[in-house]
Amino acid sequence: MSLRIAVLGAGAVGRSVVELAGEYGHVVTAVADSGTAVVDADGLDPATVLDRKEREGIVGDLDAEAALTAEYDVLVEATPTTLGDAEPGFSHVRHALETDRHVVLANKGPVAERYDDLRALEAESAGTVQFEAAVGGAIPVLSTIADFGSTHITAARGVLNGTANFILSRMAAEGLGYEHVLAEAQDLGVAEADPSFDVEGTDAALKFVILANVLGDGGYSLADAEVEGIQSIPGSALDLAAEDGRTVRLIGEATPEGVRVGPRLVPQNGTLAVSGTRNIVQLETEYAGNLNLSGRGAGGPETATAVLSDVSRLS
Amino acid sequence: MSLRIAVLGAGAVGRSVVELAGEYGHVVTAVADSGTAVVDADGLDPATVLDRKEREGIVGDLDAEAALTAEYDVLVEATPTTLGDAEPGFSHVRHALETDRHVVLANKGPVAERYDDLRALEAESAGTVQFEAAVGGAIPVLSTIADFGSTHITAARGVLNGTANFILSRMAAEGLGYEHVLAEAQDLGVAEADPSFDVEGTDAALKFVILANVLGDGGYSLADAEVEGIQSIPGSALDLAAEDGRTVRLIGEATPEGVRVGPRLVPQNGTLAVSGTRNIVQLETEYAGNLNLSGRGAGGPETATAVLSDVSRLS
Repeated sequence: MSLRIAVLGAGAVGRSVVELAGEYGHVVTAVADSGTAVVDADGLDPATVLDRKEREGIVGDLDAEAALTAEYDVLVEATPTTLGDAEPGFSHVRHALETDRHVVLANKGPVAERYDDLRALEAESAGTVQFEAAVGGAIPVLSTIADFGSTHITAARGVLNGTANFILSRMAAEGLGYEHVLAEAQDLGVAEADPSFDVEGTDAALKFVILANVLGDGGYSLADAEVEGIQSIPGSALDLAAEDGRTVRLIGEATPEGVRVGPRLVPQNGTLAVSGTRNIVQLETEYAGNLNLSGRGAGGPETATAVLSDVSRLS
Repeated sequence: MSLRIAVLGAGAVGRSVVELAGEYGHVVTAVADSGTAVVDADGLDPATVLDRKEREGIVGDLDAEAALTAEYDVLVEATPTTLGDAEPGFSHVRHALETDRHVVLANKGPVAERYDDLRALEAESAGTVQFEAAVGGAIPVLSTIADFGSTHITAARGVLNGTANFILSRMAAEGLGYEHVLAEAQDLGVAEADPSFDVEGTDAALKFVILANVLGDGGYSLADAEVEGIQSIPGSALDLAAEDGRTVRLIGEATPEGVRVGPRLVPQNGTLAVSGTRNIVQLETEYAGNLNLSGRGAGGPETATAVLSDVSRLS
């Protein structure tokens, strides 16, 4: 069934959703960036919207709020992740659910920081909430948990930040120091100008908080996570690890004991030692051993694929 | 929603389905092995059925056919895989669909050898057909393809036979010959007394035929697959590969060009070089790079988990 989508956020993910929605049989009826919006209840032409964003830096002539009150079946929330009250993402989600529309989030904020509030709103709505894109980009982590039944998954662990993983992979492979590799990652566009969200472990922690919420039926926010970053790992630690056949990765885990993220020693050629920007999630199951799911954890088309799979699940 | 399940086949998978159904909220109303059946429309006691099977080698006092005509919502077909006409599994499936019941298969035969017939029966029925357990045991291969949309997956490749993978892993790790390692695998219960189905590549080929049918909307059977086994690989080939940082695995692939299974050189620490009896499937996606899914590809509880996830999807 073809659904009408309103896309909030015109970063890499939002733009890819606009571009690929037609491939999944859906139509985009509204798009907003941080300042403007464009709306057409009959369906927007993706190329026109994306061209204007690229040429003029805006998507349309309306106020951004116009997208939220447009005609749509599914709100795709792809604005930047914020901590604490998770605004303005949370209010966008609230509006959609209160008007009985579905919500698909790529934005981690509302799902990590206000999971219980989100589920309470969903319970009062005819709409439902999906957020596969918020955990591991294209990797089908949440759909696999849903398929198995969350009560049959005893823990989740793995690598869910590609920037930190790229830096650690390069430090180990080239024998270079953190600052040097970080600068290189920034040149390549793998790390942001301000890399703190990734290298301090916050981004990975948000994803494992979401996993803890899904596995434990809520109750977690970032404040509950024990988080350590990779900023102070000396190159010598990676050399020492290598002598022992091991390496260092920023590993997160969501278990019944809570959420922890930090640098850990793992076997050099082991399952969790993915290289470059790849992500991996290991699900520990009750009756079926460990399942390992790996793939591209970020990127516009990759994350948009997860968003559009969620949209298709609603139809 | 609780569904009533009839289980045909009382091997490792069928018995695990009987044992675990209650954990997934479902009830077993009929069980048959190759010669007998037991039926209770109010729900059987799993322990009683499994005890009798273990003590007496039978599940009940009725003819096996009684399970097929019992009261149930879902038929679980877990009888041994047969080639060609895929009987008697196919007739079991036909009966369930013609009486508007759902079917979940662990038996690969009907899905690999008579996919188009199966879909034709499903089209005329109020019931639906699921078969996650037939490809890679507990690994969520088919549900991931369904989530992405089969048209957005361009190819599937990987290791889908644990016995062959165990033999190749051991040959490489221990420098032992094929016959020696095969005997060891037979002692451990990893290989059958007659190992031909696994070592000749037939089992892996059936799974990749199923993947080709799912990705290409039918048209494939085992006769369309190009299949080569591992029986004639000399230990020296593995030594030579190792000198070059590579090893040998029985790799299958389903692409628009067809189905192929055979021994291939792969990087020693690469994604496809899983060790022991583990399985891995790599899905090549249109917009999201490669997804790697690995886990236990066989075993009673593992495969039963896939069966029961399929059952829960129906409710």
